[in-house]
Amino acid sequence: MSEEPTSFSADSYFATQPAPPTLEHDIAGVKEFVARQAKEGRNVVLVTSGGTTVPLELNVVRFLDNFSAGTRGATSAEYFLKAGYAVIFMHRQFSLQPFSRHYSHSTNPFLDFLEIEGSKSGTATPPAISVTHAMRKDLVEVLTAYKSVHAAGTLHTLTFVTVNDYLWLLRALSQELSVLKRKAMYYLAAAVSDFFLPRQKMSEHKIQSGKGSLHIEMDQVPKILKPMVDVWTRGDGFIVSFKLETDEQLLVPKARAALERYGHQVVVGNDLHRRKFEVVFVSRKPLPPLPPGVTVNPIGEETTSSFAESWLRIDIPTSPIVHTNQVKEIEEDIVAELVRRHERWIQGR
Amino acid sequence: MSEEPTSFSADSYFATQPAPPTLEHDIAGVKEFVARQAKEGRNVVLVTSGGTTVPLELNVVRFLDNFSAGTRGATSAEYFLKAGYAVIFMHRQFSLQPFSRHYSHSTNPFLDFLEIEGSKSGTATPPAISVTHAMRKDLVEVLTAYKSVHAAGTLHTLTFVTVNDYLWLLRALSQELSVLKRKAMYYLAAAVSDFFLPRQKMSEHKIQSGKGSLHIEMDQVPKILKPMVDVWTRGDGFIVSFKLETDEQLLVPKARAALERYGHQVVVGNDLHRRKFEVVFVSRKPLPPLPPGVTVNPIGEETTSSFAESWLRIDIPTSPIVHTNQVKEIEEDIVAELVRRHERWIQGR
Repeated sequence: MSEEPTSFSADSYFATQPAPPTLEHDIAGVKEFVARQAKEGRNVVLVTSGGTTVPLELNVVRFLDNFSAGTRGATSAEYFLKAGYAVIFMHRQFSLQPFSRHYSHSTNPFLDFLEIEGSKSGTATPPAISVTHAMRKDLVEVLTAYKSVHAAGTLHTLTFVTVNDYLWLLRALSQELSVLKRKAMYYLAAAVSDFFLPRQKMSEHKIQSGKGSLHIEMDQVPKILKPMVDVWTRGDGFIVSFKLETDEQLLVPKARAALERYGHQVVVGNDLHRRKFEVVFVSRKPLPPLPPGVTVNPIGEETTSSFAESWLRIDIPTSPIVHTNQVKEIEEDIVAELVRRHERWIQGR
Repeated sequence: MSEEPTSFSADSYFATQPAPPTLEHDIAGVKEFVARQAKEGRNVVLVTSGGTTVPLELNVVRFLDNFSAGTRGATSAEYFLKAGYAVIFMHRQFSLQPFSRHYSHSTNPFLDFLEIEGSKSGTATPPAISVTHAMRKDLVEVLTAYKSVHAAGTLHTLTFVTVNDYLWLLRALSQELSVLKRKAMYYLAAAVSDFFLPRQKMSEHKIQSGKGSLHIEMDQVPKILKPMVDVWTRGDGFIVSFKLETDEQLLVPKARAALERYGHQVVVGNDLHRRKFEVVFVSRKPLPPLPPGVTVNPIGEETTSSFAESWLRIDIPTSPIVHTNQVKEIEEDIVAELVRRHERWIQGR
C-alpha cells in the first residue's frame, strides 16, 4: 500500500474496478419494476441510504466506514411512498429500512411486544402469538402501510456494502431510470466514502499487526455527479444530493460549489448535530414563477444572484421519544418540498 | 495525523485515553447483576461480541471498522444461557443479540409474519395483531426461551461502539467479575481492532476531501490479555480468546504464540471462510486426568509437549437455510466443550 495515489475519472474507475457479481441480476429486477411503474403512470424516486465501506483486504476483515444508520433514507422513503411515488430503496446492508425502522433491535425490540396465548404444552398445535395491547395502536398503523405498499408493489429494495457496489449500482440504476425522463427523482441520501482502495492495491490476507503502526493510503473516489447528470440520466433527472458537515460554516459554500460543478437541481445541506431539526435546500437559480393553483410552503426563500437557499426547521421534541411514529419527522417536510419542486420540474419539460 | 506512532502499554493507554461517559453507570449495573448471580450460585460468562470502530474524527463521520455481524457471540450467549450460566452480553451496538438474532431485518423480517385480525376500521379499539400460523412453531420456541431468561434475570446486556469503549468496559467488567473467582468465564468473541487513533491525534472536524489521497497512520492497541489474566482477574478467570485468520497456515502457530505470551486458558481458532463448520481449541498443556463420572466429547485431542489442539467440525448444511433455529449450530458444541473445561477449571481450584 505504498504506491502513488492514482487519479480516477468515472470512466477510468469503471474500466479498472470489477463489477459486483449480483449486478446483472439487480438490473433485471429494476428494469421490470421501472417498466411496471411507467405503465401505471407513477413517478419513481431512487433513494440511496446508509454508509458505504472501503475494504482494506481482499478477504475482508477490516474496512473504512462512513457513519450512517440510514434514518434519513428509510424515513424519507416512507414519505415518498405516502406521496404516491414508487420507490427504489438502494441501501447499505443492515441499515434501517422503511417501516421496520420503527422497531429496531435496540429501541422497541419486537420480541418484547409479543405474547404467547394460553399454554397448550403437550398438544401438537403451536399456541397463538399476538401483539400486546399496549403496542397495537402504533404497530397497526405501520403494518397497514407496509402491507398496502407490498400489495401495490411500489417498493423495490436493493442492497450494497462497499463503495464499489454503490458506484456500479448507482450508474446502472440511473441508466435504467432515465427512460422515465423527468418523472424520475434521485434522492442521494447515502453517506458515500470520498476515498477508496483500488482492487489492485489491496492486501490479499488480513493485515498483520505486530509490525508497529498501520499506514493506509487511499485514492479519491471519482466525482460521479457530473456524468450522472450529463450522461447517465441525460439531463432529465431531478437530482437531489446531500451535504453533511460538522462545521456549519462550510455548509452553504460547499453546497453552492457542488451545484456549480455538477449542474444538478438541489443540495440538501445538514449539520451533523442538527440534522433532525434543520436542513437547508440550496438550488441554482431563483425558482420560476408558480403555476396558478400551486402553493408553496412559506419557508422564506433568500435569493442571491445565482443561488436560492431555503431553510427548513421543525421544533425540537421536548419530551423523550418513545415511539418514533408519534413524533413529527423533518423528512415529512423535506419530501413534501421536493415533491412540489419535482412537479414543477416535470411541468417545465 | 503525521506525528510519530506512540507505543502504548495497557497502563499508559488508560492514563491517556478518556473513559466513556456511561462507564460508571454500566459498572453499577454489572455490580448488581454479579452480586445477584453469586448469591444464586450461578457461573457467569462475559461474552463480548461484534466489531469495534476506530473513529478518525472527533465529530465522527468516518471510522475504521472490523467485520463482524456478531453471530458467534449472540449464538453462543444463547447456548450458555441454556447451560445454566448467567450471561453478561457486551456487544457492539446494532450487532446481533441472543434470541432476536433469528429475526434480523433482512432474513425473516418480522413485519412479514404479522397479520391484522379482522377489519374494525371506525372503532376506537385497535384490531388484534397476531403471528401467522406458518411462523408460530419456530417463534414460540425462541419467544419461550427469551421470556424465561428475562423472568430469571440471567442476561445482562451492555453496548460499545469504539475500541476505546470496549477496552474500558472490558477492564471494568473483568474487575467486577473477579469476585466470582474461578466461577467466571470470559468468552472474548468480539472482533477488536489492532489499531487505534489516540484522542490527541484526531481531527476535530470531518476530514476534507479534495486534497488528493487520504493518509491514515494508526497506533497499535495495547495487548490487554496479559494484564487481564494477571491483574484484572487475578489469575482466576477462565479466559477464552478467539483468533480469526484468512490464511489457515497461521491459525495454530498464532494461537500457540498468544497462549505463550498471555498465559490464558484457551484460544479458539477459526478460519474466516470455515468458521461456521470448523474451529480448533488450542490450550497450553495436556488436559489433567478427568474426574470420575465426567465424559469428554470424542473430538480427538492431539497433544504436543506444551500445547493441546482439538478440532471441532460439524456437517456443512446442504439445504438452503431458511430458519436459523432449525439448523445445527457449531456454537452449541463450542459452548458444551468450554462448559466441560470450565467445570474442570473450577474443580482444579
